[in-house]
Amino acid sequence: MAQQMSEAEGFEPTAFIRKEEQKDYFDSINVPSIVESLESTEETISGAIKGFDAVVFSAGSGGSTGYDKTIEIDLYGAVKSINAAKTNGIKRFVMVGAAFSDVPAYWSDTMKPYYIAKQLADKELIRSGLDYTILRPVKLTDEDEPGKITIESDPYQLNKEIPRSAVAKTVLTVLPDESSYGKILEMSEGNKEIETAIKEFV
Amino acid sequence: MAQQMSEAEGFEPTAFIRKEEQKDYFDSINVPSIVESLESTEETISGAIKGFDAVVFSAGSGGSTGYDKTIEIDLYGAVKSINAAKTNGIKRFVMVGAAFSDVPAYWSDTMKPYYIAKQLADKELIRSGLDYTILRPVKLTDEDEPGKITIESDPYQLNKEIPRSAVAKTVLTVLPDESSYGKILEMSEGNKEIETAIKEFV
Repeated sequence: MAQQMSEAEGFEPTAFIRKEEQKDYFDSINVPSIVESLESTEETISGAIKGFDAVVFSAGSGGSTGYDKTIEIDLYGAVKSINAAKTNGIKRFVMVGAAFSDVPAYWSDTMKPYYIAKQLADKELIRSGLDYTILRPVKLTDEDEPGKITIESDPYQLNKEIPRSAVAKTVLTVLPDESSYGKILEMSEGNKEIETAIKEFV
Repeated sequence: MAQQMSEAEGFEPTAFIRKEEQKDYFDSINVPSIVESLESTEETISGAIKGFDAVVFSAGSGGSTGYDKTIEIDLYGAVKSINAAKTNGIKRFVMVGAAFSDVPAYWSDTMKPYYIAKQLADKELIRSGLDYTILRPVKLTDEDEPGKITIESDPYQLNKEIPRSAVAKTVLTVLPDESSYGKILEMSEGNKEIETAIKEFV
């Protein structure tokens, strides 16, 4: 996402990263980075994002960590970031959530804590008063090409996967688009160009 | 709590319990019980509490279960119960939370998910528009006698423990007390009679 953003017109992204080792990669694509943790206090996070125009939250604790990290990062990290944006007067907030997080009937036992975390993080954002857009992709793949996508209100209409690069391109496209404020986009790979899919949905 | 309530004037408690086996105990103290799970859907929980005048949430996943249950019961179970109360027009909601849940600096790594769950559950209640009172006891003990207590705004002023029976008696005392609406009571054993401690605090 940082790479797409830095190559596009009109963005000056800074990556908020957790590990010092990740810095080299962002240096190599000429994207400034801040090493800080979502496990830090709200005050620390607030200091780290001070002065920016928008926040894109796409962090996740990952599938290999425990449920403690699900609540600490995916949920509480998001809550602190939303509060930090408010504190700093940063009005624009794009959240990368998860498809089906409003559909408990779809949740498996092992994924349930993750979906709850994502649902409650989204609710926090919706109630925040910020200019939000929530993207809810299905399972992410690592294909380089974004390809085409489908955006739906009903996640059961989606396909099973979506490339990370498609989500990144969607973030870039909605970020400056005021007509996407207050919208929730459940999304997967599909049959429409990204710009077209967004325009038709929002 | 059910026992104290059923022995007191002016209450007709029903216990919301998870296991059929617990029913015998409540039968033995003449308290009706409903067997239902906080892992059920919001609609099911809503059906179970229909017609009551108040909800007291004192459930907890317990220390022996995993962090998945912390998020599913302590947090999401509470969120669903709060929403269910709103749906049913039940205005009065007393929450048994946890001392120090607003003080991240106090949290140990192992207890962190629990404190986050309790903090976010309380925030959900505060924003709900319900007539809430939040009790935040320190570590619970099983002494029969409630004894005396301390109620503070600053949990660092508290002692280390409190009998469950004291928390139960506090729930009973605040439940009909409108002056406790919108209040958060951090509490431990202490040097004041329960009624006095409440009256001086609220």
